[in-house]
Amino acid sequence: MASFTFDPLTPAGFLRRSAAAFPGRVAVVDGSRWWTYREFAGRCDALRGALAGLGVGPGDRVAALCVNSHVMLEMHHAVPAHGAVLVPVNVRLAPDEMAYVIEHSGARVLVATAEFAGPARELAGRTGVRLVEPDEYESLLAAAHRVDPPEIDERQLLAINYTSGTTGRPKGVMYHHRGAFLQAVAMCYHARLGPDARYLWTLPMFHCDGWSFTWAVTAAGGTHVCLRRVDVDEIWQRLTAGGITHLSAAPTVLTMIAEAGAAVPLPEGRTVHVDTGGAQPSPTLLARLDRLGLRVTHLYGLTETFGPIAINEWQGDWDAEPDEVRARLRARQGIGNIIASPLRVVDPDGRDVLADGETIGEIAVRGNDVMLGYYRDEAATEAVTVDGRWLLTGDLAVMHPDGYVEIRDRRKDIIISGGENIASVEVEQALDSHPDVVESAVVGRPDPRWGEVPVAYVHLRAGVAGDPADLAAHLRARLAGFKVPRSFVFTELPKTSTGKVQKNVLRARSDQGQ
Amino acid sequence: MASFTFDPLTPAGFLRRSAAAFPGRVAVVDGSRWWTYREFAGRCDALRGALAGLGVGPGDRVAALCVNSHVMLEMHHAVPAHGAVLVPVNVRLAPDEMAYVIEHSGARVLVATAEFAGPARELAGRTGVRLVEPDEYESLLAAAHRVDPPEIDERQLLAINYTSGTTGRPKGVMYHHRGAFLQAVAMCYHARLGPDARYLWTLPMFHCDGWSFTWAVTAAGGTHVCLRRVDVDEIWQRLTAGGITHLSAAPTVLTMIAEAGAAVPLPEGRTVHVDTGGAQPSPTLLARLDRLGLRVTHLYGLTETFGPIAINEWQGDWDAEPDEVRARLRARQGIGNIIASPLRVVDPDGRDVLADGETIGEIAVRGNDVMLGYYRDEAATEAVTVDGRWLLTGDLAVMHPDGYVEIRDRRKDIIISGGENIASVEVEQALDSHPDVVESAVVGRPDPRWGEVPVAYVHLRAGVAGDPADLAAHLRARLAGFKVPRSFVFTELPKTSTGKVQKNVLRARSDQGQ
Repeated sequence: MASFTFDPLTPAGFLRRSAAAFPGRVAVVDGSRWWTYREFAGRCDALRGALAGLGVGPGDRVAALCVNSHVMLEMHHAVPAHGAVLVPVNVRLAPDEMAYVIEHSGARVLVATAEFAGPARELAGRTGVRLVEPDEYESLLAAAHRVDPPEIDERQLLAINYTSGTTGRPKGVMYHHRGAFLQAVAMCYHARLGPDARYLWTLPMFHCDGWSFTWAVTAAGGTHVCLRRVDVDEIWQRLTAGGITHLSAAPTVLTMIAEAGAAVPLPEGRTVHVDTGGAQPSPTLLARLDRLGLRVTHLYGLTETFGPIAINEWQGDWDAEPDEVRARLRARQGIGNIIASPLRVVDPDGRDVLADGETIGEIAVRGNDVMLGYYRDEAATEAVTVDGRWLLTGDLAVMHPDGYVEIRDRRKDIIISGGENIASVEVEQALDSHPDVVESAVVGRPDPRWGEVPVAYVHLRAGVAGDPADLAAHLRARLAGFKVPRSFVFTELPKTSTGKVQKNVLRARSDQGQ
Repeated sequence: MASFTFDPLTPAGFLRRSAAAFPGRVAVVDGSRWWTYREFAGRCDALRGALAGLGVGPGDRVAALCVNSHVMLEMHHAVPAHGAVLVPVNVRLAPDEMAYVIEHSGARVLVATAEFAGPARELAGRTGVRLVEPDEYESLLAAAHRVDPPEIDERQLLAINYTSGTTGRPKGVMYHHRGAFLQAVAMCYHARLGPDARYLWTLPMFHCDGWSFTWAVTAAGGTHVCLRRVDVDEIWQRLTAGGITHLSAAPTVLTMIAEAGAAVPLPEGRTVHVDTGGAQPSPTLLARLDRLGLRVTHLYGLTETFGPIAINEWQGDWDAEPDEVRARLRARQGIGNIIASPLRVVDPDGRDVLADGETIGEIAVRGNDVMLGYYRDEAATEAVTVDGRWLLTGDLAVMHPDGYVEIRDRRKDIIISGGENIASVEVEQALDSHPDVVESAVVGRPDPRWGEVPVAYVHLRAGVAGDPADLAAHLRARLAGFKVPRSFVFTELPKTSTGKVQKNVLRARSDQGQ
């Protein structure tokens, strides 16, 4: 094997390439400030030097408590290029949870943006981590000495992304360089990124490293447009006047965007590529976004799979289908992305279920965009491993005859009523198709006769007085009778820090008859 | 490291994924026959079984003497999936050269399509290779037993692609699975492939495995449309009526397409993505294709780099430039592709030249889409290695301030006249901008006073009587006087089997005053 073959696959290489190939293009916009690729690369080199000056070496963990910002992007490129390990902290965690993440990861340094100066100081006081204060950051970069980047082993630890932990302690999902590189290239391909992309950061960068788009947009030589907080008026201003071409967001955020007062259809001929995932977007929401010029691609993944391991790859001949069929086709999670190993749907014995669109099994994954395991938690890693070589996702799904996967429910969200399985997602989608409904969540309430019965929590459109009888009639026209909720509660839905509906909270409320 | 992380990177995985994800989509069209992805995968499985039945095991070489056809595509997927090594034979080689390739590679089996039944029999008689006769192929597949695919090491030998060998014996360029996988994904990204792509096979598949598009189109789930021979009428019929979205071709073939009687602009709103490379497309050709609706992307690579290691990545704000500037921008070779390590342009001491768009150096490459080396030829491998870890390409180029590389000439094609370097490409581009000229080649003729003087070989448009004085005046308005050829020969240009102009033939003719 000649010496010129093979270089390690690492997302740290993307910025080097884009700085060489697109030195004068705008890499990062953050408020009124912006940096070209040459400047962005220079700042990341300086940050490497600054980290070295703080005693951070290869393998050391560096935590970030940051909004979507140039700082967070610089961390995503400089920390891996330094051979260190990035620990993005979910900014919506409680102080105890943040302290747990810092301590469990053994982070040596914590970098915070101004928005979190207070909590970061408290955290540093509690854990002893070395805090880089927001107003210290620029002077550290300015004073940094130049250090050579270390050799990277493509299988080495790149980042530890803690799960939101709806049950128990957060688990530290270990990312590797090879996986992040491949996943980023896959995102470039599927999202049709390019040097003219202007990517609006509505998705939190701390969430699966922004589904690898922190690296993908850089790989493509596109422009990162940071959004320090999710403000629908600013989003619409950027969409209509800011030349945005791409964004990603969970369905709950897309609902906010679609329902905003400022929402107006984009001018004829202009569309924005939107990637969504993390939960199932309702057909109603998809149709609404379509009319606004936001073309949604539905992705599926977990923190454990670098974000989107699957994509609802749209096939042109589906455009000719009636609206309802198209909406159903688009609500499916789809197929493994171009670098992913094929997804399976397996029965409890680990065998593939029939690809009939009906038989429910659990999604199992493996391959290059699957985590190394949970940090310092072999038991948890073993608990999700089946058959020696597959990771069980906890998502119950069917395999359609055309090879596309469709989730029926999270394993823990399925409702069993009178021996029948009720997929909460199916009931929610039927509810969401009612014109009065913004979004809904259906959970099981213990019932002496049926085991469980479904209960619906419904967020109504403003100014609408909910009518349970009307909703029930709407559902009876669409679903089997046993799937129709026994009661309807009109309320806003409680959500986790990453925008997922907290069904555990709703289940607790339903137990108490609320 | 958990057991579910990492799978080997291999192009053999693409067909498995597409057969699972797009089972009913058309994978291959060959004349009036077509196969879905499910059928294509089934046939490749059968071919694996047939090869095993012929005694072919992992590591064994299997040669193909095939036109662009379903057979050649099946070979590209089945042979690597079997762990064996594909040897695509250039169908335009002389019998002696073919025999050399078969013997040097040690091929065990040779598969031929009907077009080459005669030469293949002769070859088998001469070398003893086991020939699969064209009319034997289907029955072998039908009778094949099912065999399990072996484990693949991503760094193992995938194919041996012999160079066309303008000087000396062909050299066997060793491809590996990892490189082919990554290069194919890069092609998917840069060419914007997708399941709706219909890729017209004008480029020979035996040439760098069709620049990895044999795998890329499969990875995207697109449709391979085979063209058994380059027939411009059929190409235009396919372009206008066949829904073709993509093709690749060397500039000489593009010239034929652009100059064809059947050439008509595509309907408003429809364009075809065209990738070109192998030689520099003239700005005149690019402008002509643009008017026809063929949007050309200029790629650069070598057999040694799995085809296109660089791409002239087009930046949207260049659209606003005047025609001439745009043509000049598009004639550049560009930047490393998204999975490539950055290209360098180095001086004889191996140092980067100034990125000033003027200082000439040689392009040096390394990385995951660079060959393992030359098969059984360590001396040749060493001869192209510099600095312990770079491969010297033999292409002389400048680095522009924006990071884009532009070739000035092949090292061996540069003309040195009176101590001045004349880049033959520059003179050819100026000649090609004359309305009478189809294409041209400029070589150096030995001269007692100047060392060398440039001589132009010019292929004129049909019905035009060439006027040397007029051409010389055209050039003097555009180039320094010493670059203007001393004589003009009106002739068609001799070409290699891959469509490259044979400058060595022209040099020999110029030596003899022809």
